[in-house]
Amino acid sequence: MASSSSLTLSQALLTPSNAATSSSSSSSDRNRLSIPRFSGLKPSPISSASSSFAKRSHRRSLASRGPVVRAAAVETLQSTETALVEKSINTIRFLAIDAVEKANSGHPGLPMGCAPMGHILYDEVMRYNPKNPYWFNRDRFILSAGHGCMLQYALLHLAGYDSVKEEDLKSFRQWGSRTPGHPENFETPGVEVTTGPLGQGIANAVGQALAEKHLAARYNKSDAEIIDHYTYVILGDGCQMEGIANEACSLAGHWGLGKLIAFYDDNHISIDGDTEIAFTESVDTRFEGLGWHVIWVKNGNTGYDEIRAAIKEAKAVKDKPTLIKVTTTIGYGSPNKANSYSVHGSALGAKEVDATRKNLGWPYEPFHVPEDVKKHWSRHAANGAALEAEWNAKFAEYEKKYKDDAAELKAIVSGAFPAGWEKALPTYTPESPADATRNLSQQCLNALAKVLPGLLGGSADLASSNMTLLKMFGDFQKATPEERNVRFGVREHGMGAICNGIALHSPGLIPYCATFFVFTDYMRAAIRISALCEAGVIYVMTHDSIGLGEDGPTHQPIEHLASFRAMPNILMLRPADGNETAGAYKVAVLNRKRPSILALSRQKLPQLPGTSIEGVEKGGYTISDNSTGNKPDVILIGTGSELEIAAKAGEELRKEGKAVRVVSFVSWELFEEQSAEYKESVLPAAVTARVSIEAGSTFGWQKIVGSQGKAIGIDRFGASAPAGKIYKEFGLTSEAVVAAAKELI
Amino acid sequence: MASSSSLTLSQALLTPSNAATSSSSSSSDRNRLSIPRFSGLKPSPISSASSSFAKRSHRRSLASRGPVVRAAAVETLQSTETALVEKSINTIRFLAIDAVEKANSGHPGLPMGCAPMGHILYDEVMRYNPKNPYWFNRDRFILSAGHGCMLQYALLHLAGYDSVKEEDLKSFRQWGSRTPGHPENFETPGVEVTTGPLGQGIANAVGQALAEKHLAARYNKSDAEIIDHYTYVILGDGCQMEGIANEACSLAGHWGLGKLIAFYDDNHISIDGDTEIAFTESVDTRFEGLGWHVIWVKNGNTGYDEIRAAIKEAKAVKDKPTLIKVTTTIGYGSPNKANSYSVHGSALGAKEVDATRKNLGWPYEPFHVPEDVKKHWSRHAANGAALEAEWNAKFAEYEKKYKDDAAELKAIVSGAFPAGWEKALPTYTPESPADATRNLSQQCLNALAKVLPGLLGGSADLASSNMTLLKMFGDFQKATPEERNVRFGVREHGMGAICNGIALHSPGLIPYCATFFVFTDYMRAAIRISALCEAGVIYVMTHDSIGLGEDGPTHQPIEHLASFRAMPNILMLRPADGNETAGAYKVAVLNRKRPSILALSRQKLPQLPGTSIEGVEKGGYTISDNSTGNKPDVILIGTGSELEIAAKAGEELRKEGKAVRVVSFVSWELFEEQSAEYKESVLPAAVTARVSIEAGSTFGWQKIVGSQGKAIGIDRFGASAPAGKIYKEFGLTSEAVVAAAKELI
Repeated sequence: MASSSSLTLSQALLTPSNAATSSSSSSSDRNRLSIPRFSGLKPSPISSASSSFAKRSHRRSLASRGPVVRAAAVETLQSTETALVEKSINTIRFLAIDAVEKANSGHPGLPMGCAPMGHILYDEVMRYNPKNPYWFNRDRFILSAGHGCMLQYALLHLAGYDSVKEEDLKSFRQWGSRTPGHPENFETPGVEVTTGPLGQGIANAVGQALAEKHLAARYNKSDAEIIDHYTYVILGDGCQMEGIANEACSLAGHWGLGKLIAFYDDNHISIDGDTEIAFTESVDTRFEGLGWHVIWVKNGNTGYDEIRAAIKEAKAVKDKPTLIKVTTTIGYGSPNKANSYSVHGSALGAKEVDATRKNLGWPYEPFHVPEDVKKHWSRHAANGAALEAEWNAKFAEYEKKYKDDAAELKAIVSGAFPAGWEKALPTYTPESPADATRNLSQQCLNALAKVLPGLLGGSADLASSNMTLLKMFGDFQKATPEERNVRFGVREHGMGAICNGIALHSPGLIPYCATFFVFTDYMRAAIRISALCEAGVIYVMTHDSIGLGEDGPTHQPIEHLASFRAMPNILMLRPADGNETAGAYKVAVLNRKRPSILALSRQKLPQLPGTSIEGVEKGGYTISDNSTGNKPDVILIGTGSELEIAAKAGEELRKEGKAVRVVSFVSWELFEEQSAEYKESVLPAAVTARVSIEAGSTFGWQKIVGSQGKAIGIDRFGASAPAGKIYKEFGLTSEAVVAAAKELI
Repeated sequence: MASSSSLTLSQALLTPSNAATSSSSSSSDRNRLSIPRFSGLKPSPISSASSSFAKRSHRRSLASRGPVVRAAAVETLQSTETALVEKSINTIRFLAIDAVEKANSGHPGLPMGCAPMGHILYDEVMRYNPKNPYWFNRDRFILSAGHGCMLQYALLHLAGYDSVKEEDLKSFRQWGSRTPGHPENFETPGVEVTTGPLGQGIANAVGQALAEKHLAARYNKSDAEIIDHYTYVILGDGCQMEGIANEACSLAGHWGLGKLIAFYDDNHISIDGDTEIAFTESVDTRFEGLGWHVIWVKNGNTGYDEIRAAIKEAKAVKDKPTLIKVTTTIGYGSPNKANSYSVHGSALGAKEVDATRKNLGWPYEPFHVPEDVKKHWSRHAANGAALEAEWNAKFAEYEKKYKDDAAELKAIVSGAFPAGWEKALPTYTPESPADATRNLSQQCLNALAKVLPGLLGGSADLASSNMTLLKMFGDFQKATPEERNVRFGVREHGMGAICNGIALHSPGLIPYCATFFVFTDYMRAAIRISALCEAGVIYVMTHDSIGLGEDGPTHQPIEHLASFRAMPNILMLRPADGNETAGAYKVAVLNRKRPSILALSRQKLPQLPGTSIEGVEKGGYTISDNSTGNKPDVILIGTGSELEIAAKAGEELRKEGKAVRVVSFVSWELFEEQSAEYKESVLPAAVTARVSIEAGSTFGWQKIVGSQGKAIGIDRFGASAPAGKIYKEFGLTSEAVVAAAKELI
């Protein structure tokens, strides 16, 4: 893991003069790779770096930089080339200005201010392969201040990503383009996550850095550092104000994510004006309190060497994440709009674009990339391919020595499941003991952890209530990052976004996270982004109804099932017993591009006859039926803990000679996807006598029970009392189902 | 306002020896009030206190305390009475233990650890009238760590609140009791807000302290400090981890809420065990960064004088909120369970209850309050009545001198609206210019601000997009707290909970807050608590659909309308034009015990014929109809920006000779509350040809359009493109409505 990788591939690549004296990297290797080199890094031995750079020493290191760089017998960007750097930075600025201008929509201010750090990251620091944006060991970059996406599109364009060609820049924010208004990983290869809603990106980045640290700890060997990459983020004042950022950053400090390097674009401007009106805290002090290393780059506009030195310093601090506060001018270069909110979120306007062109000495047409800039960046395609080839060769070596580990890691990298993994899921008979689905969920999680190497996760300080501990593993902690139980603390929102970051780090990573179902309200923004960005996070949500009892209405979900059924691209699953819980996990694991929410009971439930994993996969299915010819007198429909009540009502009605079908409706989304034929076989259109029962809002149930049917549920807040009492008082009983059915038959 | 109130009523009361030398308080007054006095406060002159106590000087002040107290010729709790204090504290502990034991459910750990600070607050420090829990100028207490509610119930019981009698303690967490599992203001007078979901309470407290500072600045006079009270909070590790707490506390520091005093119960235990596993940040450093004064009470278990001195120090710091970190032992007194997670959330069990009784020397039966403790606390009824009477007399004086201010303040205190306030709302005709409902909303807000003295609010850094600025007022800031535009920064969750605190501070305060509709996801937990705790917050949610265009799917709400329609006790309003926006505001203002969400457009909308304020009040109503006998061929139903589309489709169908009714369905909840007759007059059961159109999820619409009808909406995520393009691509057009109608007719 990180602390032992004192001379890793990335460091060898990034400190060329050091690498030249290292026996672990032959000079022919270096020549073949044609690694980008740059000024600004003091090539001191790594062994002393971590102590000498642990303090805010970048000014000192800058002072002594010059001669050492000159002494290095390798290709470098000489200081005479600063003009080219500046030209590249202005290229980025004008690509952003021009694209926003053409769309007459967007945010030019951030790209103009952050172009210097963006240039240094993508041109000088980061390791990536533009022709394979999914190369596993790439450095990750996340623009948490997602509104500034033209910065990233410009950088991807210059770096040679096929996803952002000139025509894509020209169709910024247009229908069907690959350059939407905020960064979206599912639209634009090279974009790692989906940002825009503020604070999400920095939390995603914590997840990605967690994934790197975890995988490195599990798979790296003393003679093979097969996993070694950084996570870089740019976040702004808006992200810093959001609570989710504080949650995630507190965890990053706690976990000591040394390879997480966050650039805080400190431009003193937010949409409503100067940050003075609402944001006067000391961010530096807060981050020191959170256990981060903090560096301040006072001149983020032209202090290129300051930025470079800060990155070097950040890398030398291996036991803490680093916040580089970069003071910039929003809209840098715009003579009349820089340093004002007016440049944040609107096109500059033709007149100001002209003035900015004059001010920055930019004679080119819109969208023009000067030849020397183009040529300068063109090396990244070859360099990236070489980096990937080098890594592939390294992995081939690794595979020879460490066959089992390599196979596991391959599964994580590729997302392939081991054959027959689903056989590990437990099955139950009606004779199996009654149990809460939260406990049955733990049985599933522990069974799956044995066969799915990428399964890891935890709870927001409710592990012993959510029943989410993997018994065969310890805690993922700073000193034990190879373990798989993640302790998120009471930080639901950060937890969800961290899991999004983990899920999008590698296709085979399957993060799960847990809290009480009602507290999905705290993390709803992160859950929505799971759904949007196709992150197959498994949300283990226990205490899923008034059935939790005494904790009362603040803790009892009512509208939550409905609220997620209305959300696109997410599976809302409410299993009724052991087989259905196992089925829910099967579905959740298989849906790698669609998150799943499992609503699980606190209270014990019987193992019902007729339930099955296969049934769950269809979303809705018949668990018992004494009718013939697909013509029951009545259909009783239940989910989760209320399926038992529906089944009991069914038995009573049958005793009275009725033909009754009982249907489990565990997932509306899955049922919706079935064929019309199948749907008709479960809910025949001719049978309008339908009664549903669910301990939640009846909102939406009219679709299932129809205009003639009856939905029994709860359309008020809950109450504090023992669960059985609340069920009775709220009329969630088999008697109520029987009575409703009789009215309809 | 606060900084000028150097000798306020509360201070005179709480520093008796000082009051004795003050000319502003006659000795006869003091005798009549029989004010509780206590040791532990160094009665130095107030004028020097703020400098000498501004540093962490409580240890020094304690050292010099003794002789001064002896010199004071007033009744005090002598040090010999520490035994009684301890007995009172143990009474609190055992009331909590016994109630949890009887319920076999609840959280004894916090009350046992926090009993000392609880005792000191309610017995020695706070000013309240137990016989009138709603006395306006009371100090507010909020238990942010709401699971420890037995602490508060025990304190309310001892203090003489009628809401918590012995039988209430004995029915803790039972059906229908006034002592539910978490504190709920709507169940238990004396409880200010509803807590349990962690972090909400501290944010509520920021809102309550804001309200005090604001009202004091508006209504206090140099010769009449009519508003002067403190807000006290107890929060735990769980609250501290939640992002919402950081958001709210950052604002409290920014605003300089000097009368907010928060006790951080630093017990190192959360549900999953030692906080070491997930919470190792330096809270002290973070709060210093947030601009708070921080004090550490190292012995919160028995260091009574330390706690007292810390409160004195906190009060002396007038320009910053204070965090008193009180290190306690969770479950203090339990020999085998103290300092462990096992005492957090379960009954101790009979054996451990016995052991704790022995350990703390408690020979009494369950629920017993020793006579001397009872007698000691009994003075609060008379004292409280006297405090209120004194304040009433003061207010009567104030009223004579400042008639207009007194009338305004009375309206805020009582919640009475000025007669005819609703006439201030603007009205529109079809000839009025087309406009976005967010702009029309601003017209309403500015009109209402002139007639509703309690209206105040703002946006989460989107004031210029949400259009929420009150033009006649400046910004509520540290130096200008009398102003009414609140700048929340990008802190949606904190914003919502702060508004809950404001709303519950005084019946006539009407807080509104704003962000993009999609970002209700960030604040959903606070919005739900608005609904649950009956806080009539107005949520001004703009950019309410794909109609916002280029920002794309991260910014475009889809499922949000449905998700709030499923939530109990909240009004989801989606007005279509100016008249409907005015109607929505009328409804929102009138619903003081039910929050309202206004979904407003970014894009321009025409003023439609047939819309009205009165229509909105009914939730759903006909805006145009060419049918007779309540038998249209088809009913077209729209909301908000799609009502225009429905109206246009109606016109086209009429051109083809159809009898078409167009219905605006602005609020489902209000429509649901209408008489069956009215509902039939709008949506006759016999007319099953119904088409709805709404730029959101169709989830739930089957209830309105019926099994035969057709709901046009969006059941996928949005897209980044100009709004018109997305509408067309998604099929949200009048052509689609016409086609659907023709299929049904």
